Amino acid sequence: MATYVLVHGAWHTGKELEPVAAAIRAAGHRAFTPTIKGNRSGDSKTTGLDEAIESIVDYLIENDLRDIVLVGHSYGGMIITGVADRVQDRIRRLVYWNAFVPNNGESVLDMVPRPFAAMFEAIAAERGDGSVTLPFPIWREAFINDADFDTAQRAYRALNPHSLKTLVDKIALKVNPAELLVAKSYVNCTEDTSLPHDEPWHPRLSQKLGLFRLVQVPGSHELCFSNPARLAQAILDAGRD
Amino acid sequence: MATYVLVHGAWHTGKELEPVAAAIRAAGHRAFTPTIKGNRSGDSKTTGLDEAIESIVDYLIENDLRDIVLVGHSYGGMIITGVADRVQDRIRRLVYWNAFVPNNGESVLDMVPRPFAAMFEAIAAERGDGSVTLPFPIWREAFINDADFDTAQRAYRALNPHSLKTLVDKIALKVNPAELLVAKSYVNCTEDTSLPHDEPWHPRLSQKLGLFRLVQVPGSHELCFSNPARLAQAILDAGRD
Amino acid sequence: MATYVLVHGAWHTGKELEPVAAAIRAAGHRAFTPTIKGNRSGDSKTTGLDEAIESIVDYLIENDLRDIVLVGHSYGGMIITGVADRVQDRIRRLVYWNAFVPNNGESVLDMVPRPFAAMFEAIAAERGDGSVTLPFPIWREAFINDADFDTAQRAYRALNPHSLKTLVDKIALKVNPAELLVAKSYVNCTEDTSLPHDEPWHPRLSQKLGLFRLVQVPGSHELCFSNPARLAQAILDAGRD
Repeated sequence: MATYVLVHGAWHTGKELEPVAAAIRAAGHRAFTPTIKGNRSGDSKTTGLDEAIESIVDYLIENDLRDIVLVGHSYGGMIITGVADRVQDRIRRLVYWNAFVPNNGESVLDMVPRPFAAMFEAIAAERGDGSVTLPFPIWREAFINDADFDTAQRAYRALNPHSLKTLVDKIALKVNPAELLVAKSYVNCTEDTSLPHDEPWHPRLSQKLGLFRLVQVPGSHELCFSNPARLAQAILDAGRD
Repeated sequence: MATYVLVHGAWHTGKELEPVAAAIRAAGHRAFTPTIKGNRSGDSKTTGLDEAIESIVDYLIENDLRDIVLVGHSYGGMIITGVADRVQDRIRRLVYWNAFVPNNGESVLDMVPRPFAAMFEAIAAERGDGSVTLPFPIWREAFINDADFDTAQRAYRALNPHSLKTLVDKIALKVNPAELLVAKSYVNCTEDTSLPHDEPWHPRLSQKLGLFRLVQVPGSHELCFSNPARLAQAILDAGRD
Repeated sequence: MATYVLVHGAWHTGKELEPVAAAIRAAGHRAFTPTIKGNRSGDSKTTGLDEAIESIVDYLIENDLRDIVLVGHSYGGMIITGVADRVQDRIRRLVYWNAFVPNNGESVLDMVPRPFAAMFEAIAAERGDGSVTLPFPIWREAFINDADFDTAQRAYRALNPHSLKTLVDKIALKVNPAELLVAKSYVNCTEDTSLPHDEPWHPRLSQKLGLFRLVQVPGSHELCFSNPARLAQAILDAGRD
């Protein structure tokens, strides 16, 4: 029995990962789905990256979790990298699932194409509370391309506006992921088109891990909605010793 | 219920897509398989691209088809792009299945490696009636690599000589595909080696669509022969809203 | 009924391919699993590439094998290329399975990243008998990433130290693979990370074959251990006419 902690991406909360956690539990493990500060109901949309990371560190300590397989999705890759840098002794393995892999001093916006960053900044300027949202056509075609329309709509309604500051802030790390002495895996959904084809998740970001285990699985960036059981199996294949 | 129109590639006719259409109909939709001018029995092998496009426009009008999911395979990508440019109001979504995506002024030969173009021109010069054919070893190894030998031979016998002019002619478009205000999908067969690995279908040509939905499916360029039901499912995943 | 000869990679023997051979036999074919000179019990670890190739030529002649589908894994790609160059008339088709494809004058070390070559040379220097081994963490994460830990360990224990000289020696060929008049296939396991992502097996090495048939299958470099039946099916799809 292993202990899985699933850290969601931008616009999500832990609740959307519950079906994945349920499938991991059904395989005999423990699974936790915290929500990062900034994405909880009522959180300020000016939350920064440091606070966001610290909120998951706090969660692990409060729940006395150790020997953790720590899984991060998308923006959650920033969080798990920062968490491992701060409480490495609690981590058994890091699993990046189509997730950002930052080196010290990098932000999410440093790892996305410049037009994406410009779009986020324009949306945030219009919204005025520090948050960004994702236009539905981009969500439907490029993020959740493997689901039917009803699933895409239902999932879209579950999203919450995301603090732009968490995407702008540069991470402070004592050591880059490639040098971190923790086992690492990368789960790559092979139809993930949320990043463009010339700046993909894998291998562009995965190779920043140094030695890592690759697991690939058919699916979009949002396989948590379109096929949570299949995603859970990929996470289990990535998370085992 | 949606209306699918499947537009075949070079050397094919609509008849070879009937098993795919049958699987689409079994899922509750309408499906049509016209044959492009130049590939019908008795057609001149000096047919040009403009006539070829116009023949499918005529088919849609004669059959009063509207709200169409228009699917194009290979050379058929030229046709559906031209058709959408002319009768955009009849199209619900374009689905490119390992298909050429032309911008205004481009031809098929502009999008294939120079040695391929030279081979086609040499074959046409030898045949003398304006048509090109495909040598069986290339067909068997690079086009239908996922089928058994009997299927590869049977499919090869169904092919008809193809007008080189349709591959040489540059398309005239009012607007390039990326700017066309129609939903778009790209179906990529992951073992398609009909184009070389350094000039692939996806993402080289797919990304010319701008925002599009990616669907990937195991199979060769000729999945219509080797597994029509699997292809039909991929087309349905690509064609839904 | 066809005749398959499966040629193992570095550190392996024919015995590890027996489950694959059994599945090929169950499909109605003959299958042989010779062990290359240098990897047999008691062999000198200073065996060179030429002797290694010759040992498989000898095996084919001693067993009077003809019309062979000759399959090579990894380093075994050097062997089958050399064998086909010497006894081409016995070969029906070459199947490279995540295998090196050498042109005349190339060695394995010419086709791997310089840091890999340096690591092998350092390990060999430490061992002192001419052989190299693979550190377990690299094996587990990058070679057999799709297996559970017990399978990874059991497989690791089956490995034998490999003669560095076979990886250093440059092959002597009368003709390069692309010009060799024998049918060729390449089986690519899509999660093979034993070579880095910027210097992959396919298409970097496969395209040196000229016209070839691509077969892809989910799995790591060591699919022979993690799913021998799935690998056997891929080899059968690659090996048929």
